[in-house]
Amino acid sequence: MGIHAYFQSLTDLERIIRCPGKFKFQEHSVSAHSWKVVQYAKTLADIEESNGVTIDWKKLYEITSSHDYGEIFIGDIKTPVKHYSLELRAMLQQVEEGMVDHFIDEHIPAEFQPIFRRQLREGKDDSVEGLILEVADKMDQIYEAFSELQLGNTEKEFVTMYRNALIKIKKIKLHCVDYFLRNILPDLVSEGSRSPIDIAKITNEALAS
Amino acid sequence: MGIHAYFQSLTDLERIIRCPGKFKFQEHSVSAHSWKVVQYAKTLADIEESNGVTIDWKKLYEITSSHDYGEIFIGDIKTPVKHYSLELRAMLQQVEEGMVDHFIDEHIPAEFQPIFRRQLREGKDDSVEGLILEVADKMDQIYEAFSELQLGNTEKEFVTMYRNALIKIKKIKLHCVDYFLRNILPDLVSEGSRSPIDIAKITNEALAS
Amino acid sequence: MGIHAYFQSLTDLERIIRCPGKFKFQEHSVSAHSWKVVQYAKTLADIEESNGVTIDWKKLYEITSSHDYGEIFIGDIKTPVKHYSLELRAMLQQVEEGMVDHFIDEHIPAEFQPIFRRQLREGKDDSVEGLILEVADKMDQIYEAFSELQLGNTEKEFVTMYRNALIKIKKIKLHCVDYFLRNILPDLVSEGSRSPIDIAKITNEALAS
Amino acid sequence: MGIHAYFQSLTDLERIIRCPGKFKFQEHSVSAHSWKVVQYAKTLADIEESNGVTIDWKKLYEITSSHDYGEIFIGDIKTPVKHYSLELRAMLQQVEEGMVDHFIDEHIPAEFQPIFRRQLREGKDDSVEGLILEVADKMDQIYEAFSELQLGNTEKEFVTMYRNALIKIKKIKLHCVDYFLRNILPDLVSEGSRSPIDIAKITNEALAS
Amino acid sequence: MGIHAYFQSLTDLERIIRCPGKFKFQEHSVSAHSWKVVQYAKTLADIEESNGVTIDWKKLYEITSSHDYGEIFIGDIKTPVKHYSLELRAMLQQVEEGMVDHFIDEHIPAEFQPIFRRQLREGKDDSVEGLILEVADKMDQIYEAFSELQLGNTEKEFVTMYRNALIKIKKIKLHCVDYFLRNILPDLVSEGSRSPIDIAKITNEALAS
Amino acid sequence: MGIHAYFQSLTDLERIIRCPGKFKFQEHSVSAHSWKVVQYAKTLADIEESNGVTIDWKKLYEITSSHDYGEIFIGDIKTPVKHYSLELRAMLQQVEEGMVDHFIDEHIPAEFQPIFRRQLREGKDDSVEGLILEVADKMDQIYEAFSELQLGNTEKEFVTMYRNALIKIKKIKLHCVDYFLRNILPDLVSEGSRSPIDIAKITNEALAS
Repeated sequence: MGIHAYFQSLTDLERIIRCPGKFKFQEHSVSAHSWKVVQYAKTLADIEESNGVTIDWKKLYEITSSHDYGEIFIGDIKTPVKHYSLELRAMLQQVEEGMVDHFIDEHIPAEFQPIFRRQLREGKDDSVEGLILEVADKMDQIYEAFSELQLGNTEKEFVTMYRNALIKIKKIKLHCVDYFLRNILPDLVSEGSRSPIDIAKITNEALAS
Repeated sequence: MGIHAYFQSLTDLERIIRCPGKFKFQEHSVSAHSWKVVQYAKTLADIEESNGVTIDWKKLYEITSSHDYGEIFIGDIKTPVKHYSLELRAMLQQVEEGMVDHFIDEHIPAEFQPIFRRQLREGKDDSVEGLILEVADKMDQIYEAFSELQLGNTEKEFVTMYRNALIKIKKIKLHCVDYFLRNILPDLVSEGSRSPIDIAKITNEALAS
Repeated sequence: MGIHAYFQSLTDLERIIRCPGKFKFQEHSVSAHSWKVVQYAKTLADIEESNGVTIDWKKLYEITSSHDYGEIFIGDIKTPVKHYSLELRAMLQQVEEGMVDHFIDEHIPAEFQPIFRRQLREGKDDSVEGLILEVADKMDQIYEAFSELQLGNTEKEFVTMYRNALIKIKKIKLHCVDYFLRNILPDLVSEGSRSPIDIAKITNEALAS
Repeated sequence: MGIHAYFQSLTDLERIIRCPGKFKFQEHSVSAHSWKVVQYAKTLADIEESNGVTIDWKKLYEITSSHDYGEIFIGDIKTPVKHYSLELRAMLQQVEEGMVDHFIDEHIPAEFQPIFRRQLREGKDDSVEGLILEVADKMDQIYEAFSELQLGNTEKEFVTMYRNALIKIKKIKLHCVDYFLRNILPDLVSEGSRSPIDIAKITNEALAS
Repeated sequence: MGIHAYFQSLTDLERIIRCPGKFKFQEHSVSAHSWKVVQYAKTLADIEESNGVTIDWKKLYEITSSHDYGEIFIGDIKTPVKHYSLELRAMLQQVEEGMVDHFIDEHIPAEFQPIFRRQLREGKDDSVEGLILEVADKMDQIYEAFSELQLGNTEKEFVTMYRNALIKIKKIKLHCVDYFLRNILPDLVSEGSRSPIDIAKITNEALAS
Repeated sequence: MGIHAYFQSLTDLERIIRCPGKFKFQEHSVSAHSWKVVQYAKTLADIEESNGVTIDWKKLYEITSSHDYGEIFIGDIKTPVKHYSLELRAMLQQVEEGMVDHFIDEHIPAEFQPIFRRQLREGKDDSVEGLILEVADKMDQIYEAFSELQLGNTEKEFVTMYRNALIKIKKIKLHCVDYFLRNILPDLVSEGSRSPIDIAKITNEALAS
């Protein structure tokens, strides 16, 4: 089959739940995550533009909307595994790319294959669009972990997720990161002040690390 | 609060289920639907471009990703109600827009207000991007209804949804609509041939109407 | 079809979730809510009778059991919308009634149409039965919000819901309201004393307002 | 505590699922079932009244709304067990009544105890109200089983449930039973005609038995 | 049918939820509980063996894996009922055994009937294997209740469940009980120290009682 | 921490759903699957014993109950990936074993480490116990896939899963495999005869392949 097979496959990502195995008050599917990344990235790019940076909106559109499509084939491999060994990580990346390639070969008509290969590539390069994707992706980890911590989830994984995502973001040199750290994060921390878990402390430690 | 209030609100759309009240084998949240619309629209726009049409990708990005954000305030008002009277429909539209405006006034910093007002506007205008959004939105109704019919869902609503969406799409003059009708829809119908419901017949009647 | 269409439709209310969009530890369907309103109203009416008030039990039965049937057509339109403008509210009421009328015309045999029109009317009038329905309906908002606050739900909506319902109830002049405020509410507040949210304070502010 | 303990307990019935253990396309809580029984009984009583029968609406209200309250204490003991031995059945009934009595002694203020004892009694006696409750309760088994059979559920339990409920109803001498058999059941059977399971045949065999 | 009927029936226990009616952050099926009991028992038996006790592994395998199979027929009868009267408890036990016998007679081929009768017997006798099963079963009540208390569940039932299970365990004279009390329970209590509920106090009171 | 960390981790497998991404009428957790494998294996071993084969029940207990424990670390990596390349498969196996080792080093007291290393090893060797585990594991794939096919699930994955599991089982030389093929499978196929999918044909093709 052709593009129908691709369109039909999208709904599989509604059934892949992020962070499997751990107790969560709220489950998030890969498709819901993908949409939120698209939304964050749009506002982050608006902030860049308002600082005079030129955005390639077509590229940003392509890489944000499809950045987790490969999870259709390998699921949400748990973060600890991904980082357990660099060798495995490279291998997993290679397998995911192989399976995406295989899918394109089998289902996508020849005239659209170059487009799909470009769109379903790993988008996190050093371009401003690639960096915005990285920030937006980590920002959703912050929001997901924050919601759990705020409700008193005692799984350590969410503290780690929140902290690591924040550390990753703060190292990226973009106007929108400055804006996030100065204008958005403080509101989030303030909203979390009634939580049984000390979110302000975790935040400050991550920012100071 | 500022943009945090907006980012935080996005997760509400993961909890608003489309087509409430009717029995469904598979539930779809507004956020998952929004992501699929973003994905369909990208491919539809690729098809237009390959036919020489110029796409404003920034506009397409903005209107597809946010097209149902207003449902945060009014939920997924059921389609029958929406179409029950033109008077009500206009009124609902007016209320939704009023609540979005109110949210922007209250939460979005002044320098970003014009951007948010543009992004959260109703995007289905007569531009090629607006038409692509309309096609992509209806295409997801086709896929949602198809999955139910394929599994034998006996609610009449899904037959109606499938038919009306198809009738709406076929009237839109775009290269991607031609492509959909000629290359994608036949695969879908063929996949549905084992269903206890005669999807081919429903499709042919809609195309002939 | 006839009354079968009506009986069959009842199950739709099991799939309409109250307060859509907001995070909840416990979801409540409109049908479960309706049953609890029936139960509260019965005890409230018993309290009235024990104070010498005459109750029209047939009327009370009719208006409590069917008071949210119209949500089959328009869903649980979110409270903020309902109160956003008086104009919209009147319009929504009008639409809901129109759709109920339409349903009765189409499905209910002529000899039962007057009965159904009476039963599916808006029941919250100034009679003792109408007032009991109003108290019972608001009482379920108190219990729903209380359960969320007790478990530490940080959505502000539940504080608002709890407070507004209490303010509404305390203004209604019925023996059962006195009984509720003097004998039931204190037990509820006392049970909530271990919550991270100060339910006693919210209660006292509402009672003093 | 007092009546608060009773009001608070009602929500437990939202978490007790009928027919536990068996695969179901749609789950029904005891509270949703209770509400539907209240609704069916209202219409059944309307049919009796229109045939000149006098209804005690207060009694009907009391026995229909509370008829499964005792399941808070013993859950939805599976039907096969209930009927496995008459000795056990009597014993279960006795235990359920004992636990209801115990709850009333402990929580309900003395002045309301007689009311609660009357309301939480087993209501299926030979009065017209008791018979209407029996019909309404069995009617919900028919609707629950029908929905499963219509969607192709292959558990034999739902065939048995449908048949036994129908056999029970047809033996009860009420005007509303005649109405149901003549005017409602045929519509239901006709709607089920597209099911992979032969609902008409099961119905006819039950009616002929 | 034969053994297929038995294998097929196992999946029913995935749909029977423990502790029905009460609010829970995490639901546990009887099958998941059964697997955890198998796992605990294995480690408990390892501890016994390392203290020189001989274990009959075949017997332990049989009684732990099947210890709640009878709940397929009578569901998870709520603990309060089970202990409400000794007479009822004996009766329930008798019924469950009767239904298991009936199932074996009807479905299991004659040559395997003695094996199934032995395996599906109540396994909690005074042998070391029977005592290990009792400890493992109660240990899962401790873990289930602990997880709820740790997240701030305010249902009193979970305090009672935790306490009663601990009191039961500490009275059993096994090496593995000593090990549990000295090496496992303190870690659990320590992990629960951030809970809004004072788990350490509940534990100490149970141990002292 | 010590063994508490291990006992506590078991509940994670209740939240890992098998066959993620694909539409399923019934979801199965890894813990429920594990319990069913334990149950099948017990009966398969009984069949072997009744044919004069000696079973090491301790070993069988250990390898069946823990055979998927490693999925706590890597989730249910989707079968297509597992078999995509032999290189990846070996790598995944290596990683899973590495993470299990790491867990044992960190959490299990020294005196129990050898026991845990033995228990959490891959159990599918060429011993009779290892072969029984392989049969029992595949048998659950058959039952899981069968239930989906029986209800009309149109995902091709379940046909593939059913067929491949059957092909794998029939090649294993055990008395219990003969028994399964001769006495259990025919009952299963017969029960599936009303399915819209031709289960008998799929079965016969697999047996003939």
